[in-house]
Amino acid sequence: MADLGAYPMNGGDGLYSYSKNSNFQRKAIDAGKELIKEAISEKLDIKSFSSSNTFRVTDLGCSVGPNTFHAVQNIVDAVEQKYQSQGHNSQLPEFQVFFSDHTSNDFNALFQSLPPDRRYYATGVPGSFYSRLFPKAFIHFAYSSYALHCLSKVPEEVVDVNSTAWNKGRIHYSKSADQVVKAYTTQYAKDMECFLNARAQEIVCGGLMAFVVPGRPNGIPHTEVFVNTAKELFGSCLMDMAKKGIISEEKVDCFNIPQYIASLEEVEAIVKANGYFSVEIMENLTQEKPPPKVFAIGVRSGMEGMIRKHFGDEIMDELFDSFGKKLEESSCVLESKKSVSLFVLLKRRATE
Amino acid sequence: MADLGAYPMNGGDGLYSYSKNSNFQRKAIDAGKELIKEAISEKLDIKSFSSSNTFRVTDLGCSVGPNTFHAVQNIVDAVEQKYQSQGHNSQLPEFQVFFSDHTSNDFNALFQSLPPDRRYYATGVPGSFYSRLFPKAFIHFAYSSYALHCLSKVPEEVVDVNSTAWNKGRIHYSKSADQVVKAYTTQYAKDMECFLNARAQEIVCGGLMAFVVPGRPNGIPHTEVFVNTAKELFGSCLMDMAKKGIISEEKVDCFNIPQYIASLEEVEAIVKANGYFSVEIMENLTQEKPPPKVFAIGVRSGMEGMIRKHFGDEIMDELFDSFGKKLEESSCVLESKKSVSLFVLLKRRATE
Repeated sequence: MADLGAYPMNGGDGLYSYSKNSNFQRKAIDAGKELIKEAISEKLDIKSFSSSNTFRVTDLGCSVGPNTFHAVQNIVDAVEQKYQSQGHNSQLPEFQVFFSDHTSNDFNALFQSLPPDRRYYATGVPGSFYSRLFPKAFIHFAYSSYALHCLSKVPEEVVDVNSTAWNKGRIHYSKSADQVVKAYTTQYAKDMECFLNARAQEIVCGGLMAFVVPGRPNGIPHTEVFVNTAKELFGSCLMDMAKKGIISEEKVDCFNIPQYIASLEEVEAIVKANGYFSVEIMENLTQEKPPPKVFAIGVRSGMEGMIRKHFGDEIMDELFDSFGKKLEESSCVLESKKSVSLFVLLKRRATE
Repeated sequence: MADLGAYPMNGGDGLYSYSKNSNFQRKAIDAGKELIKEAISEKLDIKSFSSSNTFRVTDLGCSVGPNTFHAVQNIVDAVEQKYQSQGHNSQLPEFQVFFSDHTSNDFNALFQSLPPDRRYYATGVPGSFYSRLFPKAFIHFAYSSYALHCLSKVPEEVVDVNSTAWNKGRIHYSKSADQVVKAYTTQYAKDMECFLNARAQEIVCGGLMAFVVPGRPNGIPHTEVFVNTAKELFGSCLMDMAKKGIISEEKVDCFNIPQYIASLEEVEAIVKANGYFSVEIMENLTQEKPPPKVFAIGVRSGMEGMIRKHFGDEIMDELFDSFGKKLEESSCVLESKKSVSLFVLLKRRATE
């Protein structure tokens, strides 16, 4: 149950903490909120769970809050409403919520900020969601927000100087050679297969799974996606610093961001090939583009650990200053790019 | 679900950390280990759980390890052995372990030191064990080691200058007036009742609960108990500092240690009055007395948070130095005192 490639969001509640800089993701949660309510109302078959008096929810990649608390409360409310609407008032289930993230996540901060008036039993589950986290047939609703685009690791070829997929001078794939894109696509498909296989064991038959990730509209090239373009700009800031001699070019060459921005078509193909889940809802949600400075701090709160580990402490402020400036200079270009979140809701099939 | 009166063990792995100074407790775990194995072998009716493919264990007041890992592994091993001995080889359950402690416990340290080769799904549960932590009928084996002697709070009367139970000049009850002892005894009985009521809801019928606490042999006065005498010495160190003007006497007067050292007779009476559990095993385990310096550091690792909050940072080193010396000077007296741990194993009754 090793936790390789784990770079959690910044903990605590300081200037660059994830908890203070996750408003961007909050908007995606809100957009998905209504869809989740609808899905629970229309697609959740509570009769099949009625032998269990407990309804178990997990947030996979929960980070430190507060987004996770809003998200799980939305699910709990919707399930309660469903029970009530079906006349099960007197036998409302107890709720148990499993907040899960990498072992290096700041669970202390998460636990200390749990809503005091919560109507569920709260638990923390450390580990990677690309492996098993729960016993068989345990979870009734799995949720994940802005986490599943993070790969389990950087595809090995893209940092291998002897590979045709070596991604020299870049830290992401959107403007890279086809071999690089293929390495990322393959890694994403492998990781999603692991994810779906693990969840297929853990989620009860008829149970639901919803996830929201930054996405790419079907048919749109990788280069036309807002977050990809932003990553290219971020890579160019690193290359600028390499050219100034502040960091070595080799250091940049062997740094790649382990994130993949998929389209609904790609997700659908993977889910269908896997076979354990039926696709109930798939939608592109329009994702607001935050102002450059807000976005730069947002990226910092999410990626500081990864950058710091590879490049060291010293470059952080200069790097993110120059990134903020570059985002502003490129605001017209960025404005033309596509920004969507994928909302996907799956149901665990009854037969394997 | 507030967590009042929560003073967790020292986190991390520094000189005064609980993880480096919990060997004293480790010996009690080892003594209880065999009894737990026996109990699982002889008293656990696995047929009544066979509809569930998961066996759920919790350690209540787990602190940061490593003791908790040894303890739960012992339980998991014994349950597996039981299944195998009854020919259930092919249908061994999955194990899920719930590590529970106060919200302020260092769960980050706990999660990061989880045994990599564990054969169970690990989860953390923040909260006081004097309230509900789990859904109904969820836990198969509850365990607690060196935690249940900690009261939910200091009995209010003992720090109330207007009460006849005011514990002036002392920080514990063993040499105090009867009213003080009664205030502590009453608080202990109330807390145990809350504990048993919460567990009665959470533990499946036929499920087991084992706990180990520092104890008092039946019929032996409070003053003859090693840990009580040590606390009196600790209190006298604080009074010495008050007399020197380093801290105020009022500060000492309003400080009391929220711990109660019960006898098996007392525990048995409370369990019987509660009615949800049958007493399966009750034993006094002989508890080794650690050398004075080791004991002083052990007390520091467990109580530093509480002392620091009340008296401030500055006095810590002087206080624990003088405590260490006083323990050495009193070694003959301490040697004559009784040192036992209570081992109690209960079974959740089938009917309410």
